[in-house]
Amino acid sequence: MLIVRSAPDSRTVLRDLHAQLKAAILEGRLTAGIRLPASRVLAATLGVSRNTAVAAYDMLLSEGYITAKAGAGTFVANTVRASQRTPRTQAGNAVDARLNATSRAVARMPPSQAATVPQFDFPLGVPDTTLLRLDIWNRISARCLRALPHSALAYGPAEGQPSLRGAIAGHASFTRAVACSANDVVVSNGAQQAFDLLARTLVTPGKTRVALENPGYGPVCAAFVAAGARIVRIPVDVHGMQVHRLPEHVHIVCVSPSHQFPLGCVLSAQRRIALLDYARTHRAVIVEDDYDGEFRYGARPLDALQTLDREQCVFFVGTFSKSLFPALRIGYIVAPPWAQRALVATKTHTDRQSNVLAQETLAAFITQGHLARHVRKMQGIYSSRRQRLLDSLRADFAPWLSPVPSAAGLHLAALTAPAINAEALIARALSADVGVGSLNQYGHGRATPQGLLFGFGAIDEAKINAGMKRFRSMLREEVTGSP
Amino acid sequence: MLIVRSAPDSRTVLRDLHAQLKAAILEGRLTAGIRLPASRVLAATLGVSRNTAVAAYDMLLSEGYITAKAGAGTFVANTVRASQRTPRTQAGNAVDARLNATSRAVARMPPSQAATVPQFDFPLGVPDTTLLRLDIWNRISARCLRALPHSALAYGPAEGQPSLRGAIAGHASFTRAVACSANDVVVSNGAQQAFDLLARTLVTPGKTRVALENPGYGPVCAAFVAAGARIVRIPVDVHGMQVHRLPEHVHIVCVSPSHQFPLGCVLSAQRRIALLDYARTHRAVIVEDDYDGEFRYGARPLDALQTLDREQCVFFVGTFSKSLFPALRIGYIVAPPWAQRALVATKTHTDRQSNVLAQETLAAFITQGHLARHVRKMQGIYSSRRQRLLDSLRADFAPWLSPVPSAAGLHLAALTAPAINAEALIARALSADVGVGSLNQYGHGRATPQGLLFGFGAIDEAKINAGMKRFRSMLREEVTGSP
Repeated sequence: MLIVRSAPDSRTVLRDLHAQLKAAILEGRLTAGIRLPASRVLAATLGVSRNTAVAAYDMLLSEGYITAKAGAGTFVANTVRASQRTPRTQAGNAVDARLNATSRAVARMPPSQAATVPQFDFPLGVPDTTLLRLDIWNRISARCLRALPHSALAYGPAEGQPSLRGAIAGHASFTRAVACSANDVVVSNGAQQAFDLLARTLVTPGKTRVALENPGYGPVCAAFVAAGARIVRIPVDVHGMQVHRLPEHVHIVCVSPSHQFPLGCVLSAQRRIALLDYARTHRAVIVEDDYDGEFRYGARPLDALQTLDREQCVFFVGTFSKSLFPALRIGYIVAPPWAQRALVATKTHTDRQSNVLAQETLAAFITQGHLARHVRKMQGIYSSRRQRLLDSLRADFAPWLSPVPSAAGLHLAALTAPAINAEALIARALSADVGVGSLNQYGHGRATPQGLLFGFGAIDEAKINAGMKRFRSMLREEVTGSP
Repeated sequence: MLIVRSAPDSRTVLRDLHAQLKAAILEGRLTAGIRLPASRVLAATLGVSRNTAVAAYDMLLSEGYITAKAGAGTFVANTVRASQRTPRTQAGNAVDARLNATSRAVARMPPSQAATVPQFDFPLGVPDTTLLRLDIWNRISARCLRALPHSALAYGPAEGQPSLRGAIAGHASFTRAVACSANDVVVSNGAQQAFDLLARTLVTPGKTRVALENPGYGPVCAAFVAAGARIVRIPVDVHGMQVHRLPEHVHIVCVSPSHQFPLGCVLSAQRRIALLDYARTHRAVIVEDDYDGEFRYGARPLDALQTLDREQCVFFVGTFSKSLFPALRIGYIVAPPWAQRALVATKTHTDRQSNVLAQETLAAFITQGHLARHVRKMQGIYSSRRQRLLDSLRADFAPWLSPVPSAAGLHLAALTAPAINAEALIARALSADVGVGSLNQYGHGRATPQGLLFGFGAIDEAKINAGMKRFRSMLREEVTGSP
């Protein structure tokens, strides 16, 4: 820290400050290119006058130690000779043995290229955030911050703010018929932390066998693998996970019954019963991933596994990433009573608790009915987009693609006809500036269904039309040789 | 979900809605005692008129399925016969074999009693949040939310918002002389997640040996134990961790050099060099916990280990829990380049990213100089409180307690004289309505120093005076038999 000793006159203060800043730059503690605080910030930090701070900067500027860029700020100059530091070893390029095996594997992977976003992009799992009433969110947030007792700014309950746990219990009970009270809810940073907390609470490394859907959602797998689970992959067909193919001795079954990721199908009623039977017989637990179950099209949905559960074996995972926005980072677990304390302990040593202001704002947003209103509005909008996409797929892409039946969520899967190479099709789409996903990317083994994935959360109807038209022309050209 | 099918007239809608709510209650999907949404929320959710929602509630009310409490809302009645559900088994009382070993150990511990807070409380690690300029925070937060592009509400970089990484690099470079740029910073949910991310990135379960200070901060230990580390405890004296007692083959050394937790001492310059030598020789890494290093009293601090590091072996962990407020849940790691990608991957499968609005607000708060101003203001206030406490300890408690020299942070440790039983002293304090911590609680083994801990972050000078006076009278009474 730069400390200005109390000095009798401002010239001494200035000389001290200048000397210390210069030394910090020469010794490399302030590295080349780093932005220095504004002079008023410098003055406030060190308790010197603004004039002194400005004068010190002026001296360094004239000596070439720092540079000023108009409108951007003051920076440590690049011309300063290399610091005394040993040049940083090139360890960044090699894989360092100080990382554990999982981390070394990550470090070995080629860095992903920042892709440019196509003009007509169908990204997966991204809701439309342009239609959020941010004004309401803002107002509630400001009100919550003013109303929060000061004690709430210190440490609070790891399981979540009581207000939010109550609001979530009401929301899940009411919209998804999940039987729960506030005490059953553990607040997490999005669904991803929910999976991570469950994995760390339930998995014994090297022993616990976890069944995942194939194809399935990679990040769930990543959380369980990181906890040391042994992964078993269960194929999925149009009725969801093929529950009858679960081997003996699986301890945890992860399933997305209301809108399978990525195929989009619904786990049939018969399989729901069979899965709960399996859990009872084998004393297994079920992780029910309801990531976008709020958005439903058509008939009344089947009961959630949690609703049907009589054995306290289901963990229901929900998130506000799709119904509100991902950057909020709030999700939740509705957990059976026997696992509550352990889950809360895991949350405590993982990150203590979630951001309190976001929790309180969300609680009020739900309680005042704004979430319900937003979901209802978006359901209408997503429904139209989905229909537009389905119409186009059925009318114009019938020889190549057949949509997988689904009743919920923010994306559609379409299987490619056997003679079609899905990856080639995706490349063709991209050359028409249309971005679609690949089913193949989420599958393991030869039996992976081949097809395309269309997220419709973040693309409007006009763009769906235009994009699908371009994609179609590209294919016609392919077949007939003329547009 | 309750779905109202499109119906020709409002009576049919009402009949449907009533039947569905009643069924949900009878089947236990809406459990007794749960609060129902307000009629306008119900109406918005289901797309029925407000009148229909009110009428449905009226019918259920008259039938006794729900109750209304003035000013509180509408609730599912407790008088409804028990649902068809199998009564929840009493598994909550026994330890369930479906938890892993760590979680079973947690579940076996007796539940902690909610203690009443003493009138004169000296809590550890809690800053004074009553003096925060929440009005400024609020204004910046609202401005950030309005200014954020919609894309920022979707998924963003796991390592943190670029604005915040830059602001933290400037802050750490400038106030702690930590040599870094924005690219070296990984944003975490407070220091606790920083430790957790490091443990999960570096520890090979059952193999990696991690040295911790004894006495030391329990939650750091919890994070490394959860990752499967083998713990080695190194004693601490008034010069910090006794680095010369590090055994061979330690892979990770966790240390709090600027203000050891809980003793409060500073790691000496000699030991800093010795520790860096150890790390170089043994190819170990150092986790430098700088949890409250912003608040300094007196001389210029010693250089951070990160500043002295020439081998890319130091991970510097900082937090805004003490300099701003804990409920913000933002901390950071300044990591060497070789570990960056792996840390970011761990963060990704742990919880994807931290709350974006909190990150952006904090970035602006720092960049505009408000953090520096707040720290400077609080430093003056904490300094007075600390002095008051020290004066009292030296003047009035000399026979019993001797303060441990320290130069930073938000708490003081005071060792008990050999003849004094520290735990009995703490109990005496509590009977005078004075809450102090116990050193013993943070130590392992017989060599643990005995003493008391006084946090002065969340207690003002008047209360420090009054509390210490009461504590003193209680002791005099003890000794002389009269007040």
